Amino acid sequence: MGPHSNTDAADRDLPADVLVIGAGVIGLSIAWRAAQQGLRVVVADPEPGLGATHAAAGMLTPIAEAAYAEREVFGLGQASLRRYPDFVAELHAATGLPTGFRQDGTLQVAYDSDDLDMLAETRLLQESFGVHLTQLTARECREAEPMLDPAVRGGLLAAADGSIDPRLLATALERAAEGAGARLVRQHVDEVLCSAGRASGARLADDSVLMARWIVLAAGWQSATLAGVPAAIAPPVRPVKGQIMRLRTTAALEAAGVPAGLLQRTVRGVVRGSGVYLVPRDSGELVVGATQEELGADTAVTAGGVWELLRDARTLVPGVTELEIADTVAGLRPGTPDNAPVLGPSELPGLVLATGHFRAGVLLAPVTADTVASFLRTGTPDPSWKPFAPGRFPARRGLAQDQPAPKQPAQEQPAQEQPAQDRPAHASDDQAQAVLRTDAAAWT
Amino acid sequence: MGPHSNTDAADRDLPADVLVIGAGVIGLSIAWRAAQQGLRVVVADPEPGLGATHAAAGMLTPIAEAAYAEREVFGLGQASLRRYPDFVAELHAATGLPTGFRQDGTLQVAYDSDDLDMLAETRLLQESFGVHLTQLTARECREAEPMLDPAVRGGLLAAADGSIDPRLLATALERAAEGAGARLVRQHVDEVLCSAGRASGARLADDSVLMARWIVLAAGWQSATLAGVPAAIAPPVRPVKGQIMRLRTTAALEAAGVPAGLLQRTVRGVVRGSGVYLVPRDSGELVVGATQEELGADTAVTAGGVWELLRDARTLVPGVTELEIADTVAGLRPGTPDNAPVLGPSELPGLVLATGHFRAGVLLAPVTADTVASFLRTGTPDPSWKPFAPGRFPARRGLAQDQPAPKQPAQEQPAQEQPAQDRPAHASDDQAQAVLRTDAAAWT
Repeated sequence: MGPHSNTDAADRDLPADVLVIGAGVIGLSIAWRAAQQGLRVVVADPEPGLGATHAAAGMLTPIAEAAYAEREVFGLGQASLRRYPDFVAELHAATGLPTGFRQDGTLQVAYDSDDLDMLAETRLLQESFGVHLTQLTARECREAEPMLDPAVRGGLLAAADGSIDPRLLATALERAAEGAGARLVRQHVDEVLCSAGRASGARLADDSVLMARWIVLAAGWQSATLAGVPAAIAPPVRPVKGQIMRLRTTAALEAAGVPAGLLQRTVRGVVRGSGVYLVPRDSGELVVGATQEELGADTAVTAGGVWELLRDARTLVPGVTELEIADTVAGLRPGTPDNAPVLGPSELPGLVLATGHFRAGVLLAPVTADTVASFLRTGTPDPSWKPFAPGRFPARRGLAQDQPAPKQPAQEQPAQEQPAQDRPAHASDDQAQAVLRTDAAAWT
Repeated sequence: MGPHSNTDAADRDLPADVLVIGAGVIGLSIAWRAAQQGLRVVVADPEPGLGATHAAAGMLTPIAEAAYAEREVFGLGQASLRRYPDFVAELHAATGLPTGFRQDGTLQVAYDSDDLDMLAETRLLQESFGVHLTQLTARECREAEPMLDPAVRGGLLAAADGSIDPRLLATALERAAEGAGARLVRQHVDEVLCSAGRASGARLADDSVLMARWIVLAAGWQSATLAGVPAAIAPPVRPVKGQIMRLRTTAALEAAGVPAGLLQRTVRGVVRGSGVYLVPRDSGELVVGATQEELGADTAVTAGGVWELLRDARTLVPGVTELEIADTVAGLRPGTPDNAPVLGPSELPGLVLATGHFRAGVLLAPVTADTVASFLRTGTPDPSWKPFAPGRFPARRGLAQDQPAPKQPAQEQPAQEQPAQDRPAHASDDQAQAVLRTDAAAWT
């Protein structure tokens, strides 16, 4: 381990109340909240914040989950969004660090008349979920966002949506967790250890052992394949690749009156049937995302992925062509068979699951952290976890699911047109299916 | 200065025979050849090989210059290409280092019928220059390059063209120059010094002074603005921005029988009027270039530049969408009013110019180095320099030309549609003008 290790092997052999495996926004949020409640918390991750968190755009849009027709995830997302203002205020009070939190809404727009039909279907579906939306004409869209292409046909405004910078959020959470007494161990967990039929600790990459009363598995897509977790209990998460770009407005553009990041708020668009989103940041960044690809643990940034993102982004907002490319990365979202997270105690006593957040990890961090921390203190599962119980999947058979999805033939791999596998049974709604394909780029 | 400095200030005060300002492929080649002739050579550059050389694709295609209707540059390029096999063989013998030199031709292709018309015009022009070309049907194009899109309408094969990896070339040249006795000083030259009406040395960024009998100015676009060089003598070079991408084939693709870099040879295409080239390397890289932008010394990689490169590359060779993006950079070519280099002694005694190579620096390095080194030894200018004499431009007036070209309004800046400014008088040929626009992406 490098110089960042803030503990040594001897320290780690002391028992903790909670060992959190994984220091993305989910694991760090849980560590912070649990430490605040007086629990002795250790978080283990060789590279905190550098998994799916690092590639996430940070949209706080429960509505995006509504587009996927996942009513329960939508409800959880709304509950989490309601917690966000206090969550970030408390985080800022504890650390003094920024998170880039904004709550200026999401504008969903349609580019051509087919896209407009899709948007009308989206509206019916989202309103059936209880989302409050304001319909905008083409003119109103351009008034709201002057950088939109004049061809944009119309839009839907969800005023309560927000966004946050996930990289800043992870840094602040790490600081807050340590400030509240949690210890961060920059080591990979090689194996979960059990004794007397209960998860009791973990062996780290340096062969040291951490013992804890509770083990919280928050390791994203890698949660499926951790040694020591019985196959029947390991959550069926798989890596779903997303490529995403960070563009940057120039000082000259901003001096000319263009807003930082070109836009006033998050814009999600359907462009000739293909989904894209653009998330502006106060820093002048404009995040453009994201592909959704079933390629196993592949994190290559590809010519095709970048081209599709730029094609759709510049169609909606031609001014993006002037922006500098600051960063292009691919991350791996933890997908599950029904696109919903896996939350709560597993059938292995002592092992709590907090993974499978797919596109919604950043959105769902506050509610996940609050409910998991409460469970760790009281032993009582949160009622909101019912649809997300670890036991809801059929028992896993053998090792097949422990492998990444097979790589698809190279010539037949359009980056944004891969629907999630194993759609949930409740996606029998035709509208939901129609929306699914077009909105496949969502990545919150 | 960092630890790479291989000399100290005291050493530098010893006089040299030759001080070369600039360690791109031009400056390094000259240093190597001059040192081989027994001259005491010093090369000064804070970042050897990291200027235009670093961004160059390394096409060795005199034919590209023919497309620009610059007969003299074409002739010089052909002369230089003929020297290349021995040049790289000698370099390899001296250093053992690879350069990625290949001589497997260039295939120029047309995508639609308008592009085919343009290609026919290109053929007339190039053949009028004496280029030997083989016309290929659509089927023959695909037989030669199976990864080409089936829509490609036809092509022209120039069998003698080659390519090289400019980054490897620079590394080998640096080693060879030092092996032959040249000293590399990793310092910026702040000012050229004169005494008794003659260029006599240079002051470096650390305020040390290097004295030399000859000063060779090979600093690319920065050659125009070096302090101490009288305005009437400074070469009128300007930075012409080029964005370029390096893609990478995967082991899986190559195992499936795809050639390293997807292609057998350099492919230059006209796609709906827009020019693009793809240069495969033995390493599996595929270089895609390049934009041509008049933006002063701006080196931002932009969304628009990358999008245009990928759009045209994937149209010609759909398989590029599967490739990983290894690198995206912008470089600044040294452009001149007539797109031709500036070679030979200036009107300031002791100051020799070897700059303004625009898109053709890599191609022209051997002939430039051989003729400059010969001049430094004999004092006799090479006859081939006549069209490239430093004195051919009207006297420069004041400081206007010392400024970079004014930045264009952000919204009116299509990356690949900027013709070079100040076209030479001999470009009155209508065919040449037609080709100019389409072939503006050339970057050798």
